[in-house]
Amino acid sequence: MNATAQFQDRLNQVAKDTDALLDRLLGPALAGGEIGRPARLLDSMRYASLGAGKRFRPFLVVECASLFGVDRNQALMAGAALECVHCYSLVHDDLPAMDNDDLRRGQPTVHKAFDDATAILAGDGLLTLAFDIAARAETHPDPAVRVELVQALARASGLGGMVGGQMLDLAAEGRFDGGTVQRLGEKQILTLQAMKTGALLKFACNAGGILGKATAAQRDALDRYGAAVGQAFQIADDLLDVEGDPALVGKQTGKDAEAGKATIVGILGIDGAKARLRTIVSDAEAALRPFGKAADVLIAGAKFVADRNV
Amino acid sequence: MNATAQFQDRLNQVAKDTDALLDRLLGPALAGGEIGRPARLLDSMRYASLGAGKRFRPFLVVECASLFGVDRNQALMAGAALECVHCYSLVHDDLPAMDNDDLRRGQPTVHKAFDDATAILAGDGLLTLAFDIAARAETHPDPAVRVELVQALARASGLGGMVGGQMLDLAAEGRFDGGTVQRLGEKQILTLQAMKTGALLKFACNAGGILGKATAAQRDALDRYGAAVGQAFQIADDLLDVEGDPALVGKQTGKDAEAGKATIVGILGIDGAKARLRTIVSDAEAALRPFGKAADVLIAGAKFVADRNV
Repeated sequence: MNATAQFQDRLNQVAKDTDALLDRLLGPALAGGEIGRPARLLDSMRYASLGAGKRFRPFLVVECASLFGVDRNQALMAGAALECVHCYSLVHDDLPAMDNDDLRRGQPTVHKAFDDATAILAGDGLLTLAFDIAARAETHPDPAVRVELVQALARASGLGGMVGGQMLDLAAEGRFDGGTVQRLGEKQILTLQAMKTGALLKFACNAGGILGKATAAQRDALDRYGAAVGQAFQIADDLLDVEGDPALVGKQTGKDAEAGKATIVGILGIDGAKARLRTIVSDAEAALRPFGKAADVLIAGAKFVADRNV
Repeated sequence: MNATAQFQDRLNQVAKDTDALLDRLLGPALAGGEIGRPARLLDSMRYASLGAGKRFRPFLVVECASLFGVDRNQALMAGAALECVHCYSLVHDDLPAMDNDDLRRGQPTVHKAFDDATAILAGDGLLTLAFDIAARAETHPDPAVRVELVQALARASGLGGMVGGQMLDLAAEGRFDGGTVQRLGEKQILTLQAMKTGALLKFACNAGGILGKATAAQRDALDRYGAAVGQAFQIADDLLDVEGDPALVGKQTGKDAEAGKATIVGILGIDGAKARLRTIVSDAEAALRPFGKAADVLIAGAKFVADRNV
């Protein structure tokens, strides 16, 4: 099997395992001192987190952790925690007060399938559950590792990470105080994206190093790889918005240009952006070189992110 | 100084210290790998969490922790984490899609002072920050203690705790699927309240035992005291809604009756509820008896909760 086929195979397996794990974590037999399980809240949290999504973030956790021989079930737990954060962010971002999206992956968004109040609470519940999962002994026997995981996840998700990036994005759209669309420069766009989408992707890679008690040099390598994957992810997304086939992509394209939104593709042009993508993928490869063949699937993953047409 | 005066004194001191700590934690010098600090988000998080509130939950953490000789600054950190969760819950509960409140403690709510999107993100940011704070070495030198704190806070706040209780409360109000107001029985009301408001108050007490590495018997005592305080808090709140002076209480009274909401006061009557309150305060006292005079301020705190007229 070549690296690309192996990547697809492993991604599919992680997706399957993550779904089974989240189904258990959000199942009727949830462990711990809960004194009640409101059905509507549980249903909406399950709706928001099960059955869809490529589970690319958990894949990154599992593969990066495997570089250090981490137990796969532990890595899947950390991946499930991360996926709870990712899914909560989609639920809140879709709300009428935020991006006001009715559909996600072709299905009604949580506030359409339920209602706005339930969607707010489902997001809150998933974010909270993420830290519960990360803190469980099942995630790693060493409490020092678990608490480091909790803190890294909180940093990637909060004010200085994903939530902060979403705020910068709304501000750039001119959403506040009668503002107008901001023409961000390249550095500002990269900061915004590094926070909004990059921070969680980078956390996914770093989580592997945390679970594996990696050395400082190994952690730097994962950090560099994670940052590259985040940047590749975003440029590929921008390119899809310009060049993608709406039927294939599954959502409206040309949205950025229509909204007057500043993107890397807008600044560098299509060819410039593609050249940048190649540089980023090379950087991702270079970062993982010290791990040798063990990192082939992760490198294939970075290429997949850069080349994706959906 | 008698126990009541001492209680007021300590409560005021904890409020002052918690405010200073949150001001630092949400200040420009926030430690850690943040790559950006969107001003509007930071402003809204500060607006939501600074300068108001009695800080009764942090008081409980500090006093319960002091029973075991825990460093006060560590207890204040755990109290600050808890207060972030409490404040986020108020921001989200006030949203138009939830309780739609324009005022809180006489000030515009976050979505009125800013906007709905900012309020959602400010809540998300505070909830995330809570786990960041709980996980910091400053909160306790032992990572096993910190991770236990994280997990207990997540359990108290999530699906089986506060968020779940809020969902039960909205459902009881007949908010979903064209429902009507539910006439809950006593057991259902107690479960709802134990989740919605009781879980965080109980966590506050348990946090003291976690930080202090208390024995199982000591933890049971704190748990029993915390449960009693939560129940007393809720019945006192219900009584205020029936008997309180709106000018003094600072909000509209008679809301429960108007909404047809089932309460313990509605079921037991005013005299019955007051008798129940006395039983609960006795139980809180009995629970802490093994700690002797060291627990006098906590017992005064339980009495304060039961007797409060604001």
